[in-house]
Formats: sequence, C-alpha cells, structure tokens
Amino acid sequence: MVLKTEIVQQLRRIIKPGRILTKEADLVSYGYDASFGFYKPDVVLQVKNENEVSAVMKLANQLRIPVTPRGQASSLSGGPLPVKGGMVLDFSQWSKTLKIDSEDLVAVVSPGVITADLDDAAARYGLMYPPDPGSSHFSTIGGNLAENSGGPRCLKYGVTKDYVIGLKVVTPQGEVIRTGGRTVKNVTGYDLTKLIVGSEGTLGIITEATLRLLPRPLSTQTMMLTFDHFVDSGKTVTRILTSGILPAKVEMMDQASIRAVEAYQPQNLPVDAEAILLIELDGHPAAVADEAERIRSLAKNMAARSVKIAHSSEEARKLWKARKLVSPAIASKKPTKISEDATVPRSKIAEFCHRLQEIRNTYKIDLVVFGHVGDGNLHPNIICDKRNREEMKRVQKAIEEIFHAAIDLGGTLSGEHGIGTMKRAYMPWELSPVELDMMKRIKLAWDPNNILNPSKIFPAPGQKLVLSQ
Amino acid sequence: MVLKTEIVQQLRRIIKPGRILTKEADLVSYGYDASFGFYKPDVVLQVKNENEVSAVMKLANQLRIPVTPRGQASSLSGGPLPVKGGMVLDFSQWSKTLKIDSEDLVAVVSPGVITADLDDAAARYGLMYPPDPGSSHFSTIGGNLAENSGGPRCLKYGVTKDYVIGLKVVTPQGEVIRTGGRTVKNVTGYDLTKLIVGSEGTLGIITEATLRLLPRPLSTQTMMLTFDHFVDSGKTVTRILTSGILPAKVEMMDQASIRAVEAYQPQNLPVDAEAILLIELDGHPAAVADEAERIRSLAKNMAARSVKIAHSSEEARKLWKARKLVSPAIASKKPTKISEDATVPRSKIAEFCHRLQEIRNTYKIDLVVFGHVGDGNLHPNIICDKRNREEMKRVQKAIEEIFHAAIDLGGTLSGEHGIGTMKRAYMPWELSPVELDMMKRIKLAWDPNNILNPSKIFPAPGQKLVLSQ
Repeated sequence: MVLKTEIVQQLRRIIKPGRILTKEADLVSYGYDASFGFYKPDVVLQVKNENEVSAVMKLANQLRIPVTPRGQASSLSGGPLPVKGGMVLDFSQWSKTLKIDSEDLVAVVSPGVITADLDDAAARYGLMYPPDPGSSHFSTIGGNLAENSGGPRCLKYGVTKDYVIGLKVVTPQGEVIRTGGRTVKNVTGYDLTKLIVGSEGTLGIITEATLRLLPRPLSTQTMMLTFDHFVDSGKTVTRILTSGILPAKVEMMDQASIRAVEAYQPQNLPVDAEAILLIELDGHPAAVADEAERIRSLAKNMAARSVKIAHSSEEARKLWKARKLVSPAIASKKPTKISEDATVPRSKIAEFCHRLQEIRNTYKIDLVVFGHVGDGNLHPNIICDKRNREEMKRVQKAIEEIFHAAIDLGGTLSGEHGIGTMKRAYMPWELSPVELDMMKRIKLAWDPNNILNPSKIFPAPGQKLVLSQ
Repeated sequence: MVLKTEIVQQLRRIIKPGRILTKEADLVSYGYDASFGFYKPDVVLQVKNENEVSAVMKLANQLRIPVTPRGQASSLSGGPLPVKGGMVLDFSQWSKTLKIDSEDLVAVVSPGVITADLDDAAARYGLMYPPDPGSSHFSTIGGNLAENSGGPRCLKYGVTKDYVIGLKVVTPQGEVIRTGGRTVKNVTGYDLTKLIVGSEGTLGIITEATLRLLPRPLSTQTMMLTFDHFVDSGKTVTRILTSGILPAKVEMMDQASIRAVEAYQPQNLPVDAEAILLIELDGHPAAVADEAERIRSLAKNMAARSVKIAHSSEEARKLWKARKLVSPAIASKKPTKISEDATVPRSKIAEFCHRLQEIRNTYKIDLVVFGHVGDGNLHPNIICDKRNREEMKRVQKAIEEIFHAAIDLGGTLSGEHGIGTMKRAYMPWELSPVELDMMKRIKLAWDPNNILNPSKIFPAPGQKLVLSQ
C-alpha cells in the first residue's frame, strides 16, 4: 500500500509536517525491530500527545489504514513491525513524564520512559519498580506494558502486569479511555487494564500508566552455586523455594554459557561445571544473611560443588557480570542470535533441558541455555548465521522442536517476549480453535476494521516462521 | 419466567432428576445471597461436572434461558442472585479437589473449595495462598475468583487475581476452554485468565483454577498502635510504608468500631482513642522483630499514644480478636448491616474519613469505619433496620454520598466486593459511556444472547439502588 498525497495532506492537519516522515531512508529504518523480518511502513508519524493519536486513529479507521505503535523497537517478537505497511506511530518525540507519589506508592509515567529510569526514580523515594527485563536500560515502559515484560526479579515480585493499576488508552477507533485507577484494589467492571497490558499493541495505544511501587528492600545478597551435574541445580532450586525462602532472582547458566563467557572475557568461572546458579536475596539485612547461610547448607546437601557468598557489593557486581556477559559472549560467536523464551513449569526444567540437548544434537545447532530458572523461564539461545540458508533450515526445525517440547511439558510458547510475528504460526499448537476464537472476538469487538497492529498474535492460514525470509 | 415442563424434561437428559430442584421452598432459598434483594430462580441445577455445565449452557443458549452460577452465596454485591430468573447452577455437589504441587508452587482446585482450606493445605507444604477475604472460612474459591476478592493480606501480597495463572472455563455458549497455564510467566495471546477473574460470573463459569502459591513466611509479629487523633494514624501508615517496611496487614478501627466492640464484648480497648492500627509483620524472625521496633519508634514520633507488641501468638490472637469482633459487634446493634467497600488512594484516607463523618452527621446514620487502611480499602458500615422505610431512605442517600466521595477523591466504587446488582446503577458515576461500552462489547462478543448472569455490573437505564425493595 502506498499512501496517497491526499492522505498525507489530511495527516498534516493533525500533525506538524516536520513530524511526518515519508522519505525512503526513514521508512526503511522503521521497518526493523530486534527480531526478524523487514516491513516498510508508508509513513511514520512522530506523535506528541493523545489528541494526535486519537485523531490519527479516527482517520485510519475511516480510510482503513493499518497503524503500528513503536517505542524503542527492542522487541524480540516483532511487535513494532508494520507488517501491513500503513502508519507507524513513533513515540520518541512524546515528552517524557515520570511522577512518583510516595504516599500512594505509585508512579505515573508516559509511554516513552525508559524502564530503568523509572526504577531509579523510585529508588530516590526508598521505593522500587520490580519488573526488570534484560532490556530495561534501553526499552520503554510503553513497550514493556504492551508485551507484559518479565525479567529475573519476577520470581519474587511477579511480572509487569502485576504492577499496572491504571491506564490511559486510545482505543482502536480513536476514543480516549481510562482503565483502573490509583488503587490496588479495584473491582469496578471488567479489568481492561490487565487485558490491554500484554495485548502487544493490538487492543489500544497506551498513553499513560499508573504503576504500583513497593518499599525498596533494605539490602541484597548475591551468591553463586556451582554444580557438577545439571540435574542437581534444578533440584536445589526447588529445595530453596519450598524451604520458606523466596529469593529475588535465581538465574542459571549451563556449561555452554559458562564456556562462552570464559572464551569471551574470562571471569574465573568453572568451565567443567554443568551449571551455575546465581541467586540474589533481598530484604532485611539479618534475614538475607541468615537465608544465605541456609541456602549454603541446603546446596551442600544437594551436591553443590561450591557455594560462594558475595561479601561486598563489588563482589556481587562481579558475580552478576558473568550472567550479563552471556548474551554478548554468545553473540560474538556468530552473526545471528535467536533468543527463545519458551517457558515450562518449574518441575519440568530438568526434563526441558534434557530435551534441549537432544534438539541440539539432532539438528547440530549451537544452542546455549541460561535464564530465569526460578520461574521456569529459560532462554535457549541459538547462535547461527542467517545468510546460511542450510543452517537456518536446521535452526527453524530446532525452534519448532523447542516449542513442541515446552508445550508438551505443560509450558507455553512465550514467557516474556510475546508472540508478535515470530510465533503466531505456532499459536494453534498451544491454543484450541475455540480458545483462539475467544481472543479474536475481543479483537474484532474493539477493532472491527482490524487496523491496530494487524498480523500479530493471531495466525494466518498456512503461516510459517519468518527466519529464512 | 416459568420453566415449561418440556424444558425440565430436556434438563433431565443432562442432570440426574435428584439434582434438579423445582419445589417452591428450594427455589425461594436460592433467591437470596448476603446482599439485598430477592430473585427467585425457575430451577436449580446441582451440577457435578464440566460436561453437565457445558450441556446446560448449550441448552440455555438455544432456549435463551438465563443462567446464574452460585457458590456459598456469601456475596455482598448480589453476584449469585438470579435477577432474571431462569436456572441457578449450584456448585455445592461438585466434588472438591485440592491438589498442592510444591515443586511448581501451585494449587489446582475445583470451584467449591473453601478458601481457608486451600491456605491450610498449602501450609502443610510450607506454602501460602495469600488472599484472605473476611469470608475466607465460608466462601468458596470459585466465588473469590468471580469477584476477585481482597482481604487484609492484600496490602503486601496483592489480590486474588494476582495468584490465578490458569483456568478451565465453560464459555457462555457452552464451550470448554483453558486459559493461561501452570507458569507464572505466560504471554501467549490475550490474558483471558485475568479478564475472567473478577468478571462476576458474567463471562464464563470457572470449573478449575491453577493458583500460584508462595513460600510461607517463617514468622509473624502483631502490634497495636493507639492514636488520640485519627489523622495521625493515617500519617503513620504512610511513614511506615515509605520506610522500607511492607507489613502483611495494616488494619484500622475508628472510635465507633472501638466503642462497638467494647459494648459488645469488652477487650480492654481504649474507648477514648480516635483510632487503632493493627499491624501484622511477616517474614524472617530477625527481620520482623527489628521492623516491629522500627515501627514502634516511628509511631512514637508520629504522636501515637501507645504501641503494643504481641510477645506470644496468644497475645497476637487477642489483638486480632478485637478486629474480628467489629462486624458481629455492630451487627448486634441493629438488624441490618450494610458493608461498603468504596476504596480511595492511600493519600486520601484522612480526607475520605472526614467526608464520612460529614455524611454521618448530615443523614443521621449509624456509621462505623474500619478496614484495610494500608491499601485504602476502608469498610464504612451502616447499621440500620431495613423495615424502617424512612431510615432506609436516609441510608440510601448516605451510600450515594459515600460513592460520590470515593470517586471524587480518585477512588473506586468497589475495592473487593464487586458491582453485582448493588452498585450497577452507579457505574456511570465512575466510568464514561465509552469505557462502559468497551466492557459491554466484550460481554456481547462472548455472550451474544446475554444469558450468563444477566443484569449484573452494567446499569439498566434509570436504575436505582435496591435497598428499599
């Protein structure tokens, strides 16, 4: 679809010409995100306020033009890709507002605020915004809300959705609504807030969010547990969680991750260990000190080779650096890195890892496993080269096997990245036709012309993964 | 509507005749719940499994007969009242299942399980189901899910919805679907789970739920703070919550509650105090002991008259007994007790209480205020006699003023009881026509014949509160 001149004329009545981008170079740069695929929009609108968004949506409905909202485009599932062309709404020019209300324990934010900045602002009031996706230093809260982002701290604190109590939203037909409010308890009507959060920008455009904050824990304690046998690491996680201790984070690195880091930037990690657990406890200093000792003795009973407790924030930082290096370490091995987020019930982690090894051997792929083992949300990462068509065919098959394994073990296609364009073809593997239909009915009831972020989430007939595009 | 004989014949093909109730005495007893109003059903079906519910819903759709699900009927908002007659689905004969999986940290329950039994079962595994509505010893988890119940512990732990990760549901058209799953992180498609929880039985009939459990805290500590001036109690709550301490519960009793308890069953409470705060800390023993001391010193600085820390579980039990006695104490004063749950942002609690005093004086009503002050969810209770028409007119006006005040202060009509029949007339006070319409579109898309629990939540034109029926 190419936008006609008269449509651009109409847009100029809504948005100043300097914020309407139609040059080829601009359009191309808005055709990508951090996932796969390229879809060029017809026009990019750098919206600055709700009135503009509302007017654009009304015009788009009248003319049946697709609209795709876009934050920092760090999506790993294709959320901001304008699959059907049309208009991209770029939120980068929207003025950032970030208000902390320490009495109500809430933050009110505009969609373009960087997530880590929100937590930093809360910290100045002795408060915390718990969700901490890996991208928190560059992804926007608007994108986090659209995708219902996770992160390591979700083990103890829950996901993004658990912290959203109110929204301002422009509906697919251009109406402005408020959902929820400023109170944690609110049962007045249907919960549109939690329906819109995680709907991947297909049910409404979030223009403001009210987020719940928590008192910031007084202290944190980091520890590293090393295991000769992978299976013991999983059993240890379960033992910890059923002993009355709820760590803020329990992250795992498998042998391939450990070796990748050591090859990239040596951290003195044990390259012969099958798994490392990195744990962060938070809370009262006396509690975390005692819990760390209890975990030490639990881990020893569970055949941990060694247990290291950080004795300073500097030591803690060093331990976490190893985990942070996994992504760059594996990305340096080959040009293409595919980060999966299929999630299984915690009790199935060992079995899931076993299946992942089989998949690695069957398809001869470079597979690294690490992630949020405490909540079953592992990140199997495949390192490959997307220019190598033969390799990408094997990768594609391997990914399909990973999805199969996760669903087979009672898990889900996506724990925190979203479905977007990347996994829509596989939705029927997890959801029945009726289940998909109940979701579609909501989409249709709210967006009868299917113009808001179309071709996401719901599978098209005969659709395939887009890796080898 | 009176059910024709042939309809009962058709029902007999689905449900054994012994579980189809049509006698007048039975029908009358199913016409009430714990709120106001009486609506007699045409038939009561004691369903025992999902196939029966599915078949009944299909028949009901075909014949356009209203269906209302019912647990223990402890609803304070009219959820289980068959306003349009038709069929009541009684879940009392449904066999109770309650499975705790300590590895996955989940419970899988049937809808008829009593909520407190679930928490007790979790406790045997060192786990906890946090939501604790006042009715937890007699209300069912199915009802809790339908209404998204709250309770005191929600201050720290969040509401019912925050613990529901998967459902099995019969749709309004009789299809069986699963939503969510067994993992805390799940972003595969729209979040139907959290849409259905809190939809007051209007979007689907829950037949099974997967609930997230937490490690049970190792210890609890109770304390009582007494204040000469009401406003100081509110300020103290804020000071506590911004000092890095997150108590499990912070409950308030105003002077009227204190005096009601002392007149009913003396507990040595200070009848000249304007407010009492009851606080429960939970977590590691060293942490709660230290936090209790910090609260003591904070409270002293905030002009608390006295601070009492329970030194045994027996002492703690005695302190909480005072709070538990408020409801029976005030109920003994007059035959009718109306429990409101309008909720305001925490910072507005003092102002809300001030407005409540004005309402008490203006309408000369017997108003008692207590409740979950930590999350802004107060329970203004009005004690009256529903046979006294003149008094009930004043009560009705006072309730409307309470709703006005809550909404005016940025709060909500209902924090934890639901809208049901009781508050639907007031929905347009809080929600715009577009906001209501977005909710109605979902109802219509899922239940095109409007047969599942009709006449709830959404206002009918010109509708009024049903108190003086």
